[in-house]
Amino acid sequence: MSDHKRMWEKLNLDIEAHDGLLEVLGKFYGDIYMSQDNRLKGMEYMDFVLSEVHGLRIKELQDAKAAGRKVVGTFCVFVPEELTLAAGAVQVGLCAGAEVGSARAEELVPRGTCALIKSFIGFKLSRLCPYIESCDMIVGETTCDGKKKAYEAFAAHAPMYVMEVPQTKSAAARALWRAEIVRFKERLEELTGKAITVESLKAAMRTVNARRRVLQRLNALRAADPAPISGRDALLINQISFYDDPERFTAKIGELCDELEARVAKGQGVAPAGTPRLLLSGCPMAVPNWKLPYVIEGSGAVIVGEESCIGTRNTRDLVDETPETMDGLLDALAERYMKIDCACFTPNDERMDNVAALAATQKADGVVHYALMFCQPYAHEAMKLGRTLADKGVPLLTLETDYSMEDVEQLKTRVEAFVEMVS
Amino acid sequence: MSDHKRMWEKLNLDIEAHDGLLEVLGKFYGDIYMSQDNRLKGMEYMDFVLSEVHGLRIKELQDAKAAGRKVVGTFCVFVPEELTLAAGAVQVGLCAGAEVGSARAEELVPRGTCALIKSFIGFKLSRLCPYIESCDMIVGETTCDGKKKAYEAFAAHAPMYVMEVPQTKSAAARALWRAEIVRFKERLEELTGKAITVESLKAAMRTVNARRRVLQRLNALRAADPAPISGRDALLINQISFYDDPERFTAKIGELCDELEARVAKGQGVAPAGTPRLLLSGCPMAVPNWKLPYVIEGSGAVIVGEESCIGTRNTRDLVDETPETMDGLLDALAERYMKIDCACFTPNDERMDNVAALAATQKADGVVHYALMFCQPYAHEAMKLGRTLADKGVPLLTLETDYSMEDVEQLKTRVEAFVEMVS
Repeated sequence: MSDHKRMWEKLNLDIEAHDGLLEVLGKFYGDIYMSQDNRLKGMEYMDFVLSEVHGLRIKELQDAKAAGRKVVGTFCVFVPEELTLAAGAVQVGLCAGAEVGSARAEELVPRGTCALIKSFIGFKLSRLCPYIESCDMIVGETTCDGKKKAYEAFAAHAPMYVMEVPQTKSAAARALWRAEIVRFKERLEELTGKAITVESLKAAMRTVNARRRVLQRLNALRAADPAPISGRDALLINQISFYDDPERFTAKIGELCDELEARVAKGQGVAPAGTPRLLLSGCPMAVPNWKLPYVIEGSGAVIVGEESCIGTRNTRDLVDETPETMDGLLDALAERYMKIDCACFTPNDERMDNVAALAATQKADGVVHYALMFCQPYAHEAMKLGRTLADKGVPLLTLETDYSMEDVEQLKTRVEAFVEMVS
Repeated sequence: MSDHKRMWEKLNLDIEAHDGLLEVLGKFYGDIYMSQDNRLKGMEYMDFVLSEVHGLRIKELQDAKAAGRKVVGTFCVFVPEELTLAAGAVQVGLCAGAEVGSARAEELVPRGTCALIKSFIGFKLSRLCPYIESCDMIVGETTCDGKKKAYEAFAAHAPMYVMEVPQTKSAAARALWRAEIVRFKERLEELTGKAITVESLKAAMRTVNARRRVLQRLNALRAADPAPISGRDALLINQISFYDDPERFTAKIGELCDELEARVAKGQGVAPAGTPRLLLSGCPMAVPNWKLPYVIEGSGAVIVGEESCIGTRNTRDLVDETPETMDGLLDALAERYMKIDCACFTPNDERMDNVAALAATQKADGVVHYALMFCQPYAHEAMKLGRTLADKGVPLLTLETDYSMEDVEQLKTRVEAFVEMVS
């Protein structure tokens, strides 16, 4: 028996089903990723990380736990990783991108629940996510009705802690969020037995900001025509940013950006200059939810940005690292996270502006808005975005889908027509 | 042309479609209400109010406006009517219970939106609700993703103001709500040009509490077996409580309760003793959404309570009228509204306790949980309620429906089987 298998057994995974899952994942990855032309050398690291996503990375988490560190799991970019790191813990995004255990999930949540929520519940109930099983605490948030209520049922199965994200950005709402930041800090200190200090928090801010900066650099390079990296690869990098060790990841993406820069300087790309350029916008795509990028890039277009939580929504805003007091640092944290333009806010006009601005800087010929079925906040904003972009003459394609493969042909037809229209 | 018609024209209603709507409503009311046996004499007032729901009551609103009062429309029990009345304005619930203008509504909100939301948008876009057209301000709230986001689009068509209802009952969340109460007070003062005083607020609290008390009395009388009033009639009373002049309404329901008390003393009821007794629980049923009560009471059961916003959720808790300072009164208001056990809160265990307690006090043989399709908060809680009631041995039937009549036969089949099971 391999070391990995022994580890998975200790984590009480369903070994047989898990083997099957990894096999499907490997094949899916091969089809979608390894088939690409003109791929960057720097993507080899990503291929490796993904091939070991339930292996070496889990081993690292187990080693960290053995050394006394705690593991904190999340589903949302509102959970301030700076505090987790400052408390000496590791923060990881949790499995939520595959159609796994939906039937079991529907015992806990209504059928009319989005695929992402059903997925994390299915992963847990089917014992298929070694990340969830490694967690000492799982942090939820109140960003949508579906997650907010699902966490209540999920709490019977996992060590849940829920942060209240407000629904407006009024002064009172910001005060609520500031109080939630303090409560989370205290909870982390209790969990880890380690006080968060000005020094440890500033160091953690530098670490997380550095990762944001390198992803901003990556994104800026994608403004070049021809596009120097595929949308699939860029999405994968963003996905892995939620799992990987932050410092190692930042260094590796820095190297990849050097390679990209050289490419851009030489006018090289993954597709010919003039290839239709599309911006993806909307719901997050968690690993291995690569269906839509594959469909789009298989339809003669290239994706030049992801306006999503697994994309620019997570990387656009830096936290101010300069305050020298705990209060000042917590203010800075609260302020930075309140810049997030999640559809959970009302109104959320800044997102409309941000999508339009990103489409312009990335020189996108059109925007594809993607909402998970039953995700009401993004479905509403898709309609609003349609009105905003129409005013600016930017074409928009609005899609609603889930994790099943049943609608791939239908998506292809709609995407191909859209690509032709913007060409 | 009748006076009413002239008024409707001035309100820019679609007269022809509105005539059609009133005709359908009248027929529907006749079928569902006038066909009942052993009806209370006091229900004549309700029949009259409902027959004039778009007529005399609208005339009263117009007269109030002519006398300088403002009209405030709402969709939710979180909007503190005490403040509205204290500012000399009139507060009314808005049309949201009929399938009207759905196709138009789907131009503003996604198809996967609940019938209640589509209804108020449809009423507005089709120019069929004289209440909406009479409003100087419409107050929304952030109680669910669907309404929260729908109000953004609706604001282009109506004078919207949105209150942020928090999602937990933590100290910070209560502080946010307290701040929202103050902001609403200031907005009302601005709208009406009238300062809210300790005296006017205390008087308004007495008015609203009196209405709650008389509805509590009505509810308590329904614990008798045989049930002295039908669920349909009790629902109608609760529905009218959102429209009618509060003082007149309270007086009329007081008289009706006297009649009920005499009935109970004589052991008389609307159905024989021993008729299966059911508690309705879940989403609000706005006028004229009487489908499910009609199905239930047509299946040999009697409804003995409505655990809903148009029911006990609106009447269970009184506000403390005793503080003598504005701050004290606002604290009392904030506290009273934070007792609401809406599914928007996480967790919301008190609702589970309240449903079980109400089923016990009303001597219900079972509970029918009703969720509007696409209402995620109540769909989640239906599953949670199933687990709670199973532990207590209380049978539960969970239904999901909308405003269409297409599923009536299917509902009948399920309800009849349930009634037989609890008999």
